[in-house]
Amino acid sequence: MSKLPNVTTSIFTVMSKMAAEHNAINLSQGFPNFPVDERLTEIVSRLAHEDVHQYTPMSGYPPLLTKIATLVKSSYNRNILPETQILITAGATQAIFTSLLALLKPNDEVIILDPSYDCYEAPILLSQAKPMRVSLNDDYTPNWNAIASTFSEKTKMIIINNPHNPTGKILNESDFEKLELLLEKYPNALLLSDEVYEYITFEQKHISTHTRPKLIDRCITISSFGKSFHVTGWKIGYLVAPDYLIKEIKKVHQFLVFSVNSICQIAVSEYLDLVNINEINSLYQKKRDYFRTLLKNSRFKLMPCEGTYFQVASYANISKENDVDFCKRLITEYGVAAIPISTFYENGKDLKLIRFCFAKDNQTLEEAARRLTVI
Amino acid sequence: MSKLPNVTTSIFTVMSKMAAEHNAINLSQGFPNFPVDERLTEIVSRLAHEDVHQYTPMSGYPPLLTKIATLVKSSYNRNILPETQILITAGATQAIFTSLLALLKPNDEVIILDPSYDCYEAPILLSQAKPMRVSLNDDYTPNWNAIASTFSEKTKMIIINNPHNPTGKILNESDFEKLELLLEKYPNALLLSDEVYEYITFEQKHISTHTRPKLIDRCITISSFGKSFHVTGWKIGYLVAPDYLIKEIKKVHQFLVFSVNSICQIAVSEYLDLVNINEINSLYQKKRDYFRTLLKNSRFKLMPCEGTYFQVASYANISKENDVDFCKRLITEYGVAAIPISTFYENGKDLKLIRFCFAKDNQTLEEAARRLTVI
Ligand SMILES: CSCCC(=O)C(=O)O
Ligand SMILES: CSCCC(=O)C(=O)O
Repeated sequence: MSKLPNVTTSIFTVMSKMAAEHNAINLSQGFPNFPVDERLTEIVSRLAHEDVHQYTPMSGYPPLLTKIATLVKSSYNRNILPETQILITAGATQAIFTSLLALLKPNDEVIILDPSYDCYEAPILLSQAKPMRVSLNDDYTPNWNAIASTFSEKTKMIIINNPHNPTGKILNESDFEKLELLLEKYPNALLLSDEVYEYITFEQKHISTHTRPKLIDRCITISSFGKSFHVTGWKIGYLVAPDYLIKEIKKVHQFLVFSVNSICQIAVSEYLDLVNINEINSLYQKKRDYFRTLLKNSRFKLMPCEGTYFQVASYANISKENDVDFCKRLITEYGVAAIPISTFYENGKDLKLIRFCFAKDNQTLEEAARRLTVI
Repeated sequence: MSKLPNVTTSIFTVMSKMAAEHNAINLSQGFPNFPVDERLTEIVSRLAHEDVHQYTPMSGYPPLLTKIATLVKSSYNRNILPETQILITAGATQAIFTSLLALLKPNDEVIILDPSYDCYEAPILLSQAKPMRVSLNDDYTPNWNAIASTFSEKTKMIIINNPHNPTGKILNESDFEKLELLLEKYPNALLLSDEVYEYITFEQKHISTHTRPKLIDRCITISSFGKSFHVTGWKIGYLVAPDYLIKEIKKVHQFLVFSVNSICQIAVSEYLDLVNINEINSLYQKKRDYFRTLLKNSRFKLMPCEGTYFQVASYANISKENDVDFCKRLITEYGVAAIPISTFYENGKDLKLIRFCFAKDNQTLEEAARRLTVI
């Protein structure tokens, strides 16, 4: 008997593979196709010849820890201690998995919002804890009443993903106030905040857990340099958590991976001195706006996109197929790959919605839009 | 309550940190200090400017999977299928952790030999399985009678580490025959074979599980490019396992890390075309021999070293201190860091033995020996 009987090949693998086989434009899996900043690749190219190839310390390359503390200070005005409150991980996925495995015990309940990204459930199940799905409202805002009524003394943790993949929704001040009020009633409940798209938000400013004094003492905040610096393959993420939590997370990290790729950690560390991380917002806002403009004359209906590099679109006007079949046909007949939104729902709810990744160069977006507009 | 209440800071972290603080020669944590092959660093330097920065597929960069199959064929004459029997991992540690977490269920028993490297126990405990320690004989050969009497229907797995860290011992033909005979009686028991030092063995040839037809159908074999190519910081390892096992391991891998550092995977893949992996043996054999010669006039008694880049030495003639205290004094008074062997034993057995890593340039070995010879 499998420990994860319901896990099948990830939709990102399925769609990226099918896109490659059919030579389709891949707007499915979330990764950029434009060149990485030359200043960053130049750093890697130079570092290759230096002494950067042996284990970094278990928590991460010390100068990178310091630079992360500076980044969190300048972005969110929060003071964190590099040595004891930051852990560098092999991507945000490893940060999430390690945190959950370290902190969850059998029968603990964990609230996950539905739909959500697919990586939260496995570490919950492997800890013999219970994922408790609570549906988002139709406009993808959290349903705080439903969340409150799912909360109990058994709730060990609530997971939020802000900005939200796949819907592009971001939480607002009122959401945070409701969350804080709720958590006040449950002093033992923890918060895991997956903020990997923190630097990709548009009209509405991202509110980070780093800025919430009522939350930080029980919150694990997850970030991703892969997303922020267009290097998803590097697998360099990090988490910030209070000492009493990170102590437990590091115990698992030590035996799960011990340390993280040295040369890419060192490159990110140097790059943080050069880059203005806030420029990422405007880069992606332009891409979002351009992609939306390009699709204006298509039959797709575009949902709002407040953050992330994902655009959700309805094809209800185009076809009655379920979204998985529609996505497959989109590849084979029209040469564009997307992700069916049903795969983010616990019960595969089919709302005739698909997700496009717009982290692509203009030429790719134009050609994709051309193909999507003939449908 | 911690899920890993007994975990403290790893001895490798403690000793490397203390070595740095006291400016001591660090022969503790196992990593090379000599330059990486220029052909490999040149590949990285060139790749940095290419399209190598986004997610590789979940199981690994496909050309690297193919090259690993070729390597296993040429090293061990075993045919494996790249797509379905190999998984690239963020170092051997992640391979071990992921395999154990995927395959062990509550109350499963897992046999670990004592002493052993420190990373096996945590994933066993986190799976609520039971580590069953069986002491090696005094000469560090496995005690097959003791192993046999610990085996039962509850035994889900036995873990071997060959060549063995810290003792440098390698298993011989007779060990494998006894293991095979034992496993024949327990058709459901699995074998995890940690062979990260497979290419670092000396007079006696390494026998890999890859060459044992009776074992391969139930064996997970773990390898490490970090060790073989002197790039421990890269965290590129892999495992080979039969389809029915790797299927379960990949389910966990997908959510634990999803994929592994792209640029270093691609670099290793290209480098495998250039390097003769069998040259590593003679490199390290020369280092071992040189280090042993340098220490001939010291008061340390050197144990045999059949493989790995570790030399175990007895200081029983020098001091009656326990090995942890002795190692600390070795740093502060003599400027050389080593690892106390007691830390590899479940019960901290103190045999007045310490471990030196000789994966160092000659100058470092000479200066270390000079300091160790005045004691
Ligand atoms: C790890 S593959 C999926 C990448 C991603 O974050 C997404 O496409 O949602
Ligand atoms: C992961 S740090 C320990 C390195 C090592 O393999 C050893 O020193 O035994």
